[in-house]
Amino acid sequence: MRDVLVLVVGTTDVSLIPGISIAGPSPEATHYTPALDAEYLLLGRTRTLGVVPTTPDGIPTPAVITRALTAGVPKVVVDAGSRVPPRVPRVALGGVPGGDIRRGAMPRAAAEELAANARLLGSQLAPLGRLVLGESMPGGTTTAMAILIALGYDAWGRTSSAAPRNPKALKEAVVREAVSRISPPLDAISAAAEVGDPVHLALAAIALGAAESGGEVALAGGTQMAAAAALYRAMGGDAGRLRILTTRWIVEDPESDLLGLAREVGVGAVEHSRTSFAGSRMEGLRAFERGYVKEGVAMGYALIRAEGMGLDALGIVEGELEGLLGRARPARRSPGSGRRRADSRTSAPDTPRGPQSASAPQSDGWVARRSGHGSRRAARRGAMDRRSAEHPRRAPERSPHRWTAR
Amino acid sequence: MRDVLVLVVGTTDVSLIPGISIAGPSPEATHYTPALDAEYLLLGRTRTLGVVPTTPDGIPTPAVITRALTAGVPKVVVDAGSRVPPRVPRVALGGVPGGDIRRGAMPRAAAEELAANARLLGSQLAPLGRLVLGESMPGGTTTAMAILIALGYDAWGRTSSAAPRNPKALKEAVVREAVSRISPPLDAISAAAEVGDPVHLALAAIALGAAESGGEVALAGGTQMAAAAALYRAMGGDAGRLRILTTRWIVEDPESDLLGLAREVGVGAVEHSRTSFAGSRMEGLRAFERGYVKEGVAMGYALIRAEGMGLDALGIVEGELEGLLGRARPARRSPGSGRRRADSRTSAPDTPRGPQSASAPQSDGWVARRSGHGSRRAARRGAMDRRSAEHPRRAPERSPHRWTAR
Repeated sequence: MRDVLVLVVGTTDVSLIPGISIAGPSPEATHYTPALDAEYLLLGRTRTLGVVPTTPDGIPTPAVITRALTAGVPKVVVDAGSRVPPRVPRVALGGVPGGDIRRGAMPRAAAEELAANARLLGSQLAPLGRLVLGESMPGGTTTAMAILIALGYDAWGRTSSAAPRNPKALKEAVVREAVSRISPPLDAISAAAEVGDPVHLALAAIALGAAESGGEVALAGGTQMAAAAALYRAMGGDAGRLRILTTRWIVEDPESDLLGLAREVGVGAVEHSRTSFAGSRMEGLRAFERGYVKEGVAMGYALIRAEGMGLDALGIVEGELEGLLGRARPARRSPGSGRRRADSRTSAPDTPRGPQSASAPQSDGWVARRSGHGSRRAARRGAMDRRSAEHPRRAPERSPHRWTAR
Repeated sequence: MRDVLVLVVGTTDVSLIPGISIAGPSPEATHYTPALDAEYLLLGRTRTLGVVPTTPDGIPTPAVITRALTAGVPKVVVDAGSRVPPRVPRVALGGVPGGDIRRGAMPRAAAEELAANARLLGSQLAPLGRLVLGESMPGGTTTAMAILIALGYDAWGRTSSAAPRNPKALKEAVVREAVSRISPPLDAISAAAEVGDPVHLALAAIALGAAESGGEVALAGGTQMAAAAALYRAMGGDAGRLRILTTRWIVEDPESDLLGLAREVGVGAVEHSRTSFAGSRMEGLRAFERGYVKEGVAMGYALIRAEGMGLDALGIVEGELEGLLGRARPARRSPGSGRRRADSRTSAPDTPRGPQSASAPQSDGWVARRSGHGSRRAARRGAMDRRSAEHPRRAPERSPHRWTAR
């Protein structure tokens, strides 16, 4: 049976809380990441902002890895509720961007409309193949924790982070304030509307609609997928029919507990990738072995698929990343170019700033470069961030950027 | 190879010109029809307005026929640009609703974004099956004429109408005023942006993207599909790869010329249904043989498919329609109930008005009824119209309603 990769994107204002997603040049920049991920996944380039999908140190966003390893897999982008809609075909479900969960995530009517449409979408897509549901939403591990707790699970401190050091104290403080307004356990719609976000609810309802139509569903992601599975179960779904596909970096993470959460929710199986990036010639990929990124944009699924096909996953990813960095090369050479070739092109901290625009995140000192193909908004330049991937050679407040201005 | 039915919806302000689509209770009502068609096709009921998808005389919207005959066919709704977005999962393409072509249809940048996204969508969907592209947009035969002329074809008076008597003089006057601003032949984007609409452009670009990816594409509709094929060809597509699927009522229509237009555009083949509704026990279906409706929502495809499967298409459609009218029954009995059972339920002109709402089309004296399942906006009631389907027993200005308030 064919796979259909469904990337569900959205935003939560939780990512605007300083430190939660260790926001990049500005907290608002995190709201661009889902759009950029969706665009990169479908196009191999971005349209909303002219940025390179790596940190200044060459750590790629997971969309780069997923795209590299899923050539030929049909892909659908679903917009559950985004402040910055991706500029690619996107399935709109009538949802709204998620608010700060300390004050409520979304109106109940919006959650109901979103769930109804997502369920219908699941039933529509089910005949087309096995649905592999991925996500992109900064702040999602915090809302995942809140959703699980709202549904009655003891999830305190058990969801993951894209940083090697999970900012658990901050996340728990936010969740504690959010759930102080409610009395768990709540029903699924209430949990999502009160302390959740549009993405988890859409994932759950798409999965439910597909399962009800006899389809096969895999949730491709980290601990957020335990929250999606819990919502699915709370909506009446049989969690035993669900499979979570994730990375080795998630299941080996000492700071979170996907396997335990999945077991408590009753998920049928958790499968993880085995690929190691330790032997990579690229620093940005070796960083994954030190706890950076871990998951996102269905990266675990992409790795598992490549492994199953006997492909050289690391080699393919290195090729994609080198192509990307090569494309970003021509504008300027950095003084640090004596270092490892590809890496030096995104880590040089001393090249000039790119032009700035009032309507886009500021580049804030990151490397500005032109890629080979300009976007219509190439004049907008900015550095993007997500998931608190801390910079290995800088102070934390300067470091975490998942996207680099070019 | 599996079929995937892609319904492209949108609006053009051409439908607001009195008489073009012989608008129903109010010209604005035509802007609801694409949303209602999409909702009915996917759900078998409407969500945006609480209406029954038939005229007061029981003539069903083509969505009823298409839904009845395509059970099991995966369906995707694409919103090319609608003033009233359907309340079902819809693929948004970054397009905008079409303006009045006498003053320009849409900004060029919007047309470019729409075409780029539609082309990408075509390439995404192509691996999933044969794409069957249908449409719902009141006013579409007028913009189709304008597009064909803008591209250099002599299409004056050759596009069809949902009315037995095609209001050609009015349509030609509108098109004449629109094309007076341009010098044909234009390129595809210019033709769509100047005198077209979002739906024709999206149809063409989806088809192009699919064909470029090696997919098979059928355009399912009437003379609008000649305009979509002409745009596709103007964008560099090989029209010989396209097939138009339509109804007998279109190819036998003495007032339009799909076969001639398709030949001039170079379309590979035109296939039409053979089913007759002449022997139906339902007056609303027999009306199709007198020139009402003719096409829309891929109805020709649905009939051809059913015929190819050896199904009793008329019997299935009668069953769907009776179910619909039966559901609409309980509220009140009309004084005319001695007439043919099902028909009397939608044609009674003397039952009380339904409640009215400022935000929805007014019911204007049409039968208001409750269906078995209420929608969240059931309080909104109104009568909907489209395609100038003239009422057989009334003066034209009172007659043409494709949707009936319940």
